Amino acid sequence: MTVRIGVIGVGMIGQDHVRRITTVLSGADVVAVSDVDVERAKEVAGRVSARVHAAGQDVILDDAVDAVLVASWGGTHEEYVLAALAADKPVFCEKPLATTQEACLRILDAEVAAGHRLVQVGYMRRYDAAYRALKEVVGSGAIGAPLLMHCTHRNPSVPGYYESDSAITDTAVHEIDMVRWLFDEEIVATSVLQPRRSRHGGTLQDPIVVLLELSSGILVDVEVSVNIRYGYDIRGEVVGEDGTAALGEASPVTVRRGGGVSTRVPADWRERFIRAYDVELQEWVDAVRTGGQFGPSAWDGYAAAVVSDAALEARHTGTRTLVELATKPALYSI
Amino acid sequence: MTVRIGVIGVGMIGQDHVRRITTVLSGADVVAVSDVDVERAKEVAGRVSARVHAAGQDVILDDAVDAVLVASWGGTHEEYVLAALAADKPVFCEKPLATTQEACLRILDAEVAAGHRLVQVGYMRRYDAAYRALKEVVGSGAIGAPLLMHCTHRNPSVPGYYESDSAITDTAVHEIDMVRWLFDEEIVATSVLQPRRSRHGGTLQDPIVVLLELSSGILVDVEVSVNIRYGYDIRGEVVGEDGTAALGEASPVTVRRGGGVSTRVPADWRERFIRAYDVELQEWVDAVRTGGQFGPSAWDGYAAAVVSDAALEARHTGTRTLVELATKPALYSI
Amino acid sequence: MTVRIGVIGVGMIGQDHVRRITTVLSGADVVAVSDVDVERAKEVAGRVSARVHAAGQDVILDDAVDAVLVASWGGTHEEYVLAALAADKPVFCEKPLATTQEACLRILDAEVAAGHRLVQVGYMRRYDAAYRALKEVVGSGAIGAPLLMHCTHRNPSVPGYYESDSAITDTAVHEIDMVRWLFDEEIVATSVLQPRRSRHGGTLQDPIVVLLELSSGILVDVEVSVNIRYGYDIRGEVVGEDGTAALGEASPVTVRRGGGVSTRVPADWRERFIRAYDVELQEWVDAVRTGGQFGPSAWDGYAAAVVSDAALEARHTGTRTLVELATKPALYSI
Amino acid sequence: MTVRIGVIGVGMIGQDHVRRITTVLSGADVVAVSDVDVERAKEVAGRVSARVHAAGQDVILDDAVDAVLVASWGGTHEEYVLAALAADKPVFCEKPLATTQEACLRILDAEVAAGHRLVQVGYMRRYDAAYRALKEVVGSGAIGAPLLMHCTHRNPSVPGYYESDSAITDTAVHEIDMVRWLFDEEIVATSVLQPRRSRHGGTLQDPIVVLLELSSGILVDVEVSVNIRYGYDIRGEVVGEDGTAALGEASPVTVRRGGGVSTRVPADWRERFIRAYDVELQEWVDAVRTGGQFGPSAWDGYAAAVVSDAALEARHTGTRTLVELATKPALYSI
Repeated sequence: MTVRIGVIGVGMIGQDHVRRITTVLSGADVVAVSDVDVERAKEVAGRVSARVHAAGQDVILDDAVDAVLVASWGGTHEEYVLAALAADKPVFCEKPLATTQEACLRILDAEVAAGHRLVQVGYMRRYDAAYRALKEVVGSGAIGAPLLMHCTHRNPSVPGYYESDSAITDTAVHEIDMVRWLFDEEIVATSVLQPRRSRHGGTLQDPIVVLLELSSGILVDVEVSVNIRYGYDIRGEVVGEDGTAALGEASPVTVRRGGGVSTRVPADWRERFIRAYDVELQEWVDAVRTGGQFGPSAWDGYAAAVVSDAALEARHTGTRTLVELATKPALYSI
Repeated sequence: MTVRIGVIGVGMIGQDHVRRITTVLSGADVVAVSDVDVERAKEVAGRVSARVHAAGQDVILDDAVDAVLVASWGGTHEEYVLAALAADKPVFCEKPLATTQEACLRILDAEVAAGHRLVQVGYMRRYDAAYRALKEVVGSGAIGAPLLMHCTHRNPSVPGYYESDSAITDTAVHEIDMVRWLFDEEIVATSVLQPRRSRHGGTLQDPIVVLLELSSGILVDVEVSVNIRYGYDIRGEVVGEDGTAALGEASPVTVRRGGGVSTRVPADWRERFIRAYDVELQEWVDAVRTGGQFGPSAWDGYAAAVVSDAALEARHTGTRTLVELATKPALYSI
Repeated sequence: MTVRIGVIGVGMIGQDHVRRITTVLSGADVVAVSDVDVERAKEVAGRVSARVHAAGQDVILDDAVDAVLVASWGGTHEEYVLAALAADKPVFCEKPLATTQEACLRILDAEVAAGHRLVQVGYMRRYDAAYRALKEVVGSGAIGAPLLMHCTHRNPSVPGYYESDSAITDTAVHEIDMVRWLFDEEIVATSVLQPRRSRHGGTLQDPIVVLLELSSGILVDVEVSVNIRYGYDIRGEVVGEDGTAALGEASPVTVRRGGGVSTRVPADWRERFIRAYDVELQEWVDAVRTGGQFGPSAWDGYAAAVVSDAALEARHTGTRTLVELATKPALYSI
Repeated sequence: MTVRIGVIGVGMIGQDHVRRITTVLSGADVVAVSDVDVERAKEVAGRVSARVHAAGQDVILDDAVDAVLVASWGGTHEEYVLAALAADKPVFCEKPLATTQEACLRILDAEVAAGHRLVQVGYMRRYDAAYRALKEVVGSGAIGAPLLMHCTHRNPSVPGYYESDSAITDTAVHEIDMVRWLFDEEIVATSVLQPRRSRHGGTLQDPIVVLLELSSGILVDVEVSVNIRYGYDIRGEVVGEDGTAALGEASPVTVRRGGGVSTRVPADWRERFIRAYDVELQEWVDAVRTGGQFGPSAWDGYAAAVVSDAALEARHTGTRTLVELATKPALYSI
């Protein structure tokens, strides 16, 4: 069986998913497309022989659509995810799940009412081979109980619309989801440190350090540097009682030249995580096909929103801020 | 368009390709299968809803088959490849192309007579991301003209039927193809050095060092150690006039524990090259679909056979042996 | 000219310096020794043909003594350093300079009154080749202005008398001095984070994270883990505007064995810093011989004491604590 | 007791040893100096308050001289070493021990006649911390019995007088001594491979690969590249039955900048081996002082000369050449 996917939103990310589904992945096709820019929708649909719908809702209701991929503007996510839930169709929603905690809670309520998981949120790091290997080592007990984690999230540069708060909402949010998954614990408090600023950031507060405290007491520090020029560099080291485990340096080639030995750093997130995106969507397609388990849930999307809001407050007030989550529905406890 | 593939031979390698085509790759299906073991053919075909043919020839002649994948016993490759050429169907043939130089030449003749490329031989290293990055660095001129290359090809252990000659025909043959591709030159002479033997090899001559001389004078040394216990370790360093470029150490996780910092070595060739196999076959499928360029040619299969024979002679006689190739048909010069 | 050194205190550290002076370094001899344990003093003196004095003061006043090395218990440092200043003799004082800020200030006053530098405090990291190379890279501007630094200070285990406060006063104090030297700035505030505890530490708060804020806004985080079992691991990465520079991994041998590639971590501080101790004392001897510049000053010893006290307060109160230094005398501004 | 050393030859190497003895090492002084250039001898002697002799023989016969260091032109080594033996004084002779096998044999005869070891030859790699750690790992059995070793000896450039043969006599000779020491075996045969030449070498055969066969069958390949521009790079990997052990990459700093992660390669042999020279001479001084065991012997110097001659013949004839050593006197068997 081939999974027939309807894609809502075919901007940069949406088009990349269409390419992935039609030329990289096994077992899926794009059969319907919509976009706020109808001409763009037509152009993309034409390439893959899909039909065009005027509205995202029509994509969802199309009988030929087995599953929905939402890659439209964040402000529209809630509406489409709720509609997919109403139609009882699996929906893959790019992050964020929704733009407010309240909207996330409405989605949780709807999915709980549906009685089974239909929503997956696009946190792709969980599908990265290095993070998976890290989780396996930590889970094996080889380094003892985890106590600390040091993360760096470095971008060579950011676009003009990027704001100081974006370092939390767009950037550190990946680590927020990742540590919840890696340690299988909720984040209970957060603080933000604001060191000397890079001259490359203009008025941006860049870098920042986000501290995340987990329920068992594990402390995570996340350096976010978004104008560091040299490359896109994602690192993480878990410190346990008996040792540490860190993401490896995976450079395909080592060059000796001009006085040094060097390896490459990825240029951007695409280069670093392209395989994680492929695996993420392949596993989602496989889960749709076989009735298997979905990945990051609406609960995960909600928790990321709450922690992110707390980190924003911590940044603005300069104080440690508690994370207050709603009660977790049983649907998400398995 | 989906490429409909007929698979001849569904032993371990053939089954792995069936799995790959049906659950990993985009744009291809397995529609027909044959195997010397009919029950096995039925079992594999049943899993993927393909039909079973009594003979490989029937697979090739099946109108529903767009392209043929040969994964049967090496001794049968010539017959099936020639039949595919006769049927004017693209054929992917696992290595070796054929078991003798003469058989390879007959395939070359047939393909030249056909007037266009139809054959691809399964040398998957050309599709490995690290080797491709290495080729790119060498080709960029960053290290100057290449002068030397040091390779290691290490296996933790080998099966009981593995013989001293297998170190050349089954193992070093991968480096033989790889260096021809990496430097885009033919090998003109070869020698084999036979050092002290490992106690793990019994009567095997293990390790050996194979020396390959390329037409421009580049010298390649290949250490083949097939009982080295610690893992499957493929390395390569190209020494140029201005520097060197080497395959990187790509371990997903670095662990600090018990007095040391360590990274993992792959356990076997599957772990090391699994992605290369996926990319190899995806690019072949894409080439079939789009009429694009095929990968390693019948000429490459022939040249590997000739060099391999020369290395066997070098090993048995203990002397440097020249490699004598037939004239290269124009079909393979592009 | 050979520098004739009198050593006060020949416990473990003192004896190691006697060994160093007599068998490793050039241009110095141990001519006099004292210790609270007279028998021990006699034993050590006998080995190197030095005379024994009943009291440290006698060592200082001995006309045959050109320079004094104080390696006695910390509580006695002030008295001996003041006596050396009174005698106008160069004095190398193991850390701490004195046990209270007030005592440090009395030493500063005395040295300022003397009008020239005579005191060097034993902060040996400044003499480590890796730290020196790091300072050179940072100073070269290659990574732009420094913004952050991440440090780890890990011990495999600590003795029974080690307390939670020791993580600051005995352990992090090395980073406190090092960052002041590396960036040539004072520390202006400090905080202490106390994550989940290691089971190996009993009632110890282990690990802790010490945050140090420098006058230009550079933020330093120091992980102190003192029961981490796997080895003694000192790391540091400076994050600049254009890149980062980190202490290298300097393992003499890389081993491939049992599924992994591994390098050694030093077993303890002796193994890691033995050369730094040699260089530290050789450069001090050379400075005494040639009238050259001394290393870490009494001001550095004082500043370390003040920051250390602030960090203790930060740990006990759980709040960010300001560092309040006295006015820096001109003597130390060069 | 301070060892009073007489230095014969104060060119670049000799002056460096004078500096080392007087400002780095413990327990030694330079008391007498000679040089073919008398003005240079006076200048160097003046710096360290040593006396000047007109001839090397006078240095050796000077009653104030306890031990002799020969750093004059290679052609004079035999004469001075024989004279030191005649005077029954310990003599440290820079490599080569002598310029012909016959001269080496005359020295062996004289030392055997003396009945005890007095000669040490300046093979400093045996004193390098990385090589020592490598020998320890190999000796521990951790990688099983050694079967192969891969070495690279790379220089960024060489002076104008360097000839194709120098790659053996000046460069690979270090590996010749090193592997004899590392494996405690003699070399029994050698071959030389001559690949494509670097454009930087002009008419030089550069690079070459020297193959060394040890008595147990261990095979060593040594790449010698002497114009490789990027740095001075000495590497070595021993391949055993169960794993491998290699010299580590010991860079003090790792820099992330401009798209890459890089470490430094030493600029030249001084930077790479400066500590080995210090340790070599300190241990020699200590052996003189305490009557301890000397390092590389006249036998080692002789064996290096014989292997080096065989490698020259192998290069000129293009054939594998046997190494024929005289019978080893019992004096050198301990």
